[in-house]
Amino acid sequence: MSLIVQKFGGSSVANAERLLNVARIVTDTYRAGNEVVVVVSAQGDTTDDFIAKAAELNARPSKREMDVLLSAGEQISMSLLAMTIQTLGCTAISLTGWQAGIQTDINYSEARIRKVKPERVRSELDRGRIVIIAGFQGINKQDDITTLGRGGSDTTAVAIAASLGADLCQIYTDVDGVYTADPRIVPNARKLTEITYDEMLELASLGAQVLHNRSVEMAKKYNVDLEVVSSFTRNPGTKVKEGSDMEKMNVSGVARDNNCARIAVINLPDEPGVAFKVFSLLAKHKINVDIILQSVGKNRVKTISFTVPQDSAEETREVLANAKGQLGFEDLSVNTEVAKVSIVGAGMASNSGVAAKMFEALAMAGINIRMISTSEIKISVLINEEDSEKAVKAIHNKFFSEE
Amino acid sequence: MSLIVQKFGGSSVANAERLLNVARIVTDTYRAGNEVVVVVSAQGDTTDDFIAKAAELNARPSKREMDVLLSAGEQISMSLLAMTIQTLGCTAISLTGWQAGIQTDINYSEARIRKVKPERVRSELDRGRIVIIAGFQGINKQDDITTLGRGGSDTTAVAIAASLGADLCQIYTDVDGVYTADPRIVPNARKLTEITYDEMLELASLGAQVLHNRSVEMAKKYNVDLEVVSSFTRNPGTKVKEGSDMEKMNVSGVARDNNCARIAVINLPDEPGVAFKVFSLLAKHKINVDIILQSVGKNRVKTISFTVPQDSAEETREVLANAKGQLGFEDLSVNTEVAKVSIVGAGMASNSGVAAKMFEALAMAGINIRMISTSEIKISVLINEEDSEKAVKAIHNKFFSEE
Repeated sequence: MSLIVQKFGGSSVANAERLLNVARIVTDTYRAGNEVVVVVSAQGDTTDDFIAKAAELNARPSKREMDVLLSAGEQISMSLLAMTIQTLGCTAISLTGWQAGIQTDINYSEARIRKVKPERVRSELDRGRIVIIAGFQGINKQDDITTLGRGGSDTTAVAIAASLGADLCQIYTDVDGVYTADPRIVPNARKLTEITYDEMLELASLGAQVLHNRSVEMAKKYNVDLEVVSSFTRNPGTKVKEGSDMEKMNVSGVARDNNCARIAVINLPDEPGVAFKVFSLLAKHKINVDIILQSVGKNRVKTISFTVPQDSAEETREVLANAKGQLGFEDLSVNTEVAKVSIVGAGMASNSGVAAKMFEALAMAGINIRMISTSEIKISVLINEEDSEKAVKAIHNKFFSEE
Repeated sequence: MSLIVQKFGGSSVANAERLLNVARIVTDTYRAGNEVVVVVSAQGDTTDDFIAKAAELNARPSKREMDVLLSAGEQISMSLLAMTIQTLGCTAISLTGWQAGIQTDINYSEARIRKVKPERVRSELDRGRIVIIAGFQGINKQDDITTLGRGGSDTTAVAIAASLGADLCQIYTDVDGVYTADPRIVPNARKLTEITYDEMLELASLGAQVLHNRSVEMAKKYNVDLEVVSSFTRNPGTKVKEGSDMEKMNVSGVARDNNCARIAVINLPDEPGVAFKVFSLLAKHKINVDIILQSVGKNRVKTISFTVPQDSAEETREVLANAKGQLGFEDLSVNTEVAKVSIVGAGMASNSGVAAKMFEALAMAGINIRMISTSEIKISVLINEEDSEKAVKAIHNKFFSEE
């Protein structure tokens, strides 16, 4: 008998028909002889509807009260799912975040899970019940309801799986796994059978949008086997785990991120500590900097370029402009018409030809590289946004059609 | 400084405009120098919508899961009200049933409050906050959410008021007080300034539909001063309390209940214990019997007539028909075209002319009395349903125009 945690997102439980579909997946898993814990998000547009209702009443509602409001969403979906499972002849019980022992810090709207006390869940499983838990929510030390912010339900699922020592944590979503590239761009992209936590982390942060990084980081930390799987098909998904026999694959995927902007701070004085000044200023404003390029010009000046998320571009411009006198640069340029394309693979570090192969693919496609960044398991390039689909196709073709 | 509990029903918080109206009432009370605890129901049709959603998924959903679902309704309305109060510049905090310490027995869907632990509410009041509590819900000893059934939010308000030693518990509703008769039937009905708990209990059970009996019983038990008041006007309402100077008023109101049925068990053997057999059988089926009339006929048989709520009439007929052999009666008749009209007043017992005056009014209006029942503070008559409005008008005219 295995213990399996299954997480279903809002679109998977959006209406009666889909709830029935989810109930069938859950009861099939239970009847195959497994213990099953289910984590659910709020139905479809519930959260957006609540946010709109609140906005009508208060332009800046308190975060505490927003959490009270939003957490009602999962309470609704979890009870409806429990009732649906009961019609299929299994016993099910739904538990809110606090009933399931999800203890968080006190940061309303973006709380972090501090501890899971799994006693209640464990005892319900011991009574032969399917346990349904509200995702995205917990309780803080003041006995107040908190919500976990983006990726919250995935994180709840992994935390519950870790605390119970589950054999598998399945994340059901509207795609049926992790692909070597976005199938909407590269129709012959292949589904990966397995991928490591680190590769998944790189793919997620690069825009693959399958799993939220928080949940993958937690899965890695507690060594929880994840599976990304579709709630609409019954095909096997992609397993995410610590792998040893995965080195054979140099490159596991190609990802694209159009949500970035390139900032250039032009003609800074070429003095020691000037880069530190720029980036400590941005860090103070919690602006997340990714690729950095520094070029020394003539006449003892240099230019520092870097990328930030597109929605931080305007703030970055303001912060730097306000510090122009202090930093001593001549000009600023902001370009949001850029995209980052990356290849990710655990075997990349030990294979020196990978970068050359990627650059060759881009050169053959006539695409100009503006910035480059590399790590142990990824190579990212910044290119013009208009070239990004072509770049993904060319790189994918190079690595996955030639193999 | 007084401590005031204010309860608002579903129609009072149904939309943004009404929430703002309620928020104004609450903040006005607070700014007048009072401590304020607010108890809210779910918005407008929320509960009905939830019930419909559940019915779509499961014809007989478990009561536990229904309580999880329904309790989300007050969680939504209380957080929205808190946000609305915040826009008016007061600090407010919303608490669910379990956060507010409402402990119940384990009967899902119709739980009884066993205890209120007011520490959290008290400490929030001490911090100068307006405290908003979800009505209708609590938590049982298994840490599961329960709901209180009909009249639940009124009961929550009274229980909170009792536990905090509040000075007043205001029940805001869509009528602005308790009248000497239903103003839709008797346009010149007068609003009562004060009424005793016992009178209110009689009026409520007789169909006045202003306050649920459970809440009045609890208010009487813990001596909580109630006030029935409208959330749409700012007029003074009706106070419900233990009164000593109220005897001066013989009759405080006329009530009508069309939701009753008259059952006649015809020609039972005239033997000792036969009435006991009939009513213990009905009690076993939890059928609530009101007025009873027994008439002895010829040939050692007798007929027992009684009233039951109209929606119990069919069940009563079945229960009795199944026991026909055992009880030995000849025939059964069920008549749902009847109504009960009652006068209520704490001063009635000491004034022997009241009953005669009521019967005179009915006789003058040509209305036939089918059954009569009296208690210390009320006189009820059963008449044909078609006469009920005329009866209320005639009786009201007799008692309140002649005074």
